Amino acid sequence: MPEISFVLVNPLYDGNVGFAARVLKNFGFSRLVLVDPCALGDDAIARAAHARDVLDSAERLSFAEVYERSDLLIAATGEVSKTICQSMRMPYFSPREIREQIRDLDGRISILFGRENWGLNNEEIRKSDVICTIPSSPDYPILNLSHAVAVVAYELANLPRGDYLLASREEMDHLYRHIDSYLDLIHHPDFKRGNTMLMMRRIFSRARLTAREASTLHGLMRRSEWHVRGGNNEEENQE
Amino acid sequence: MPEISFVLVNPLYDGNVGFAARVLKNFGFSRLVLVDPCALGDDAIARAAHARDVLDSAERLSFAEVYERSDLLIAATGEVSKTICQSMRMPYFSPREIREQIRDLDGRISILFGRENWGLNNEEIRKSDVICTIPSSPDYPILNLSHAVAVVAYELANLPRGDYLLASREEMDHLYRHIDSYLDLIHHPDFKRGNTMLMMRRIFSRARLTAREASTLHGLMRRSEWHVRGGNNEEENQE
Repeated sequence: MPEISFVLVNPLYDGNVGFAARVLKNFGFSRLVLVDPCALGDDAIARAAHARDVLDSAERLSFAEVYERSDLLIAATGEVSKTICQSMRMPYFSPREIREQIRDLDGRISILFGRENWGLNNEEIRKSDVICTIPSSPDYPILNLSHAVAVVAYELANLPRGDYLLASREEMDHLYRHIDSYLDLIHHPDFKRGNTMLMMRRIFSRARLTAREASTLHGLMRRSEWHVRGGNNEEENQE
Repeated sequence: MPEISFVLVNPLYDGNVGFAARVLKNFGFSRLVLVDPCALGDDAIARAAHARDVLDSAERLSFAEVYERSDLLIAATGEVSKTICQSMRMPYFSPREIREQIRDLDGRISILFGRENWGLNNEEIRKSDVICTIPSSPDYPILNLSHAVAVVAYELANLPRGDYLLASREEMDHLYRHIDSYLDLIHHPDFKRGNTMLMMRRIFSRARLTAREASTLHGLMRRSEWHVRGGNNEEENQE
């Protein structure tokens, strides 16, 4: 079964943190992570109610630490970020679609929820692998933080045991470094490099590569490199 | 499209009423009904945020009025009420199953949410047609009221236009009176009557009868009555 963490990025109101702890426990989750949270006072404790254990065991991590330890990083955002998604070449998925996508996976999955006032910033979204958007009314698309957590937790509850082990964050970073160096080798222009690498990240993170698939891609690039560098031209011509 | 009302029965905390108004608007709903609510103060207004219109236009009705005007009455309850469901011969359905059940319907549907401390009482559940239970963890199955509303509203958002007009509450009551009188006619024992009538209600409300189907059932009972009362025995024998 994937290990799913719910990450609140810079929550501003401790009552929302308490409610988030409660609703996570309601749906069988226990991993709450807080990135630079507000002080947690009486409101957090009162609203956590019988999920005080989830609140008390919440980990405090930096965004970089969350990124490092997540094999798949999902950004939960409002409908309003569609334009952001487009500029970052990120399609977005409903919580139900996310459930279907991760239902066979094993690995460490984190779901980011943004600040109450302005959500996740562009860098946080850029570093995410997948965007999850809760379908909502154009008349008032902004859910309270804890209600967004509730809907996502409801959808992701009781996932079956996953069969496919996700490539780890380290393996994926290694793959992207390899792609980047391969682009150097084939003289891919510098001014396009940022967008191309972003697209590569989007494609492979959307595909949720397994460790075996990442390894195969390395092999294909090594084979290409050998040929680009000259290789055995005779042999190539015979193929 | 069915007309869906969200009914909070005797809510105790006005903050929850405000959050409920907000999340209803988030998912495109506007009909909030309050049965004997607490006073609505600053917390309700603050948490409703930009759904102040939904909060302000909330109707205040008695439970009897809600019952009268609902062609289909759905009780949203926690997992804890399974034993209640059994004793009332009521199967229970997840919000997703409820969505499938009502997706082709047209009519007036109300969804009841109980008090924060002890939910809906037995009489309120007994008068409901269908029970909706949000799947939750046995470790902490009790959702905050507004999170329960969030999950149900999320599931029921954007229903397609329904093709089948539900039999109205008046038509269903008329049908049950007819069944009761028919049971008299066939000497159904008094001591079993309560349970049998409850079962009839459960079966037909679960089936969500259309007006046409209710009419057909009346016709079948009238035909039976004619035969029970003697009818034309010659004719019957020839059939």
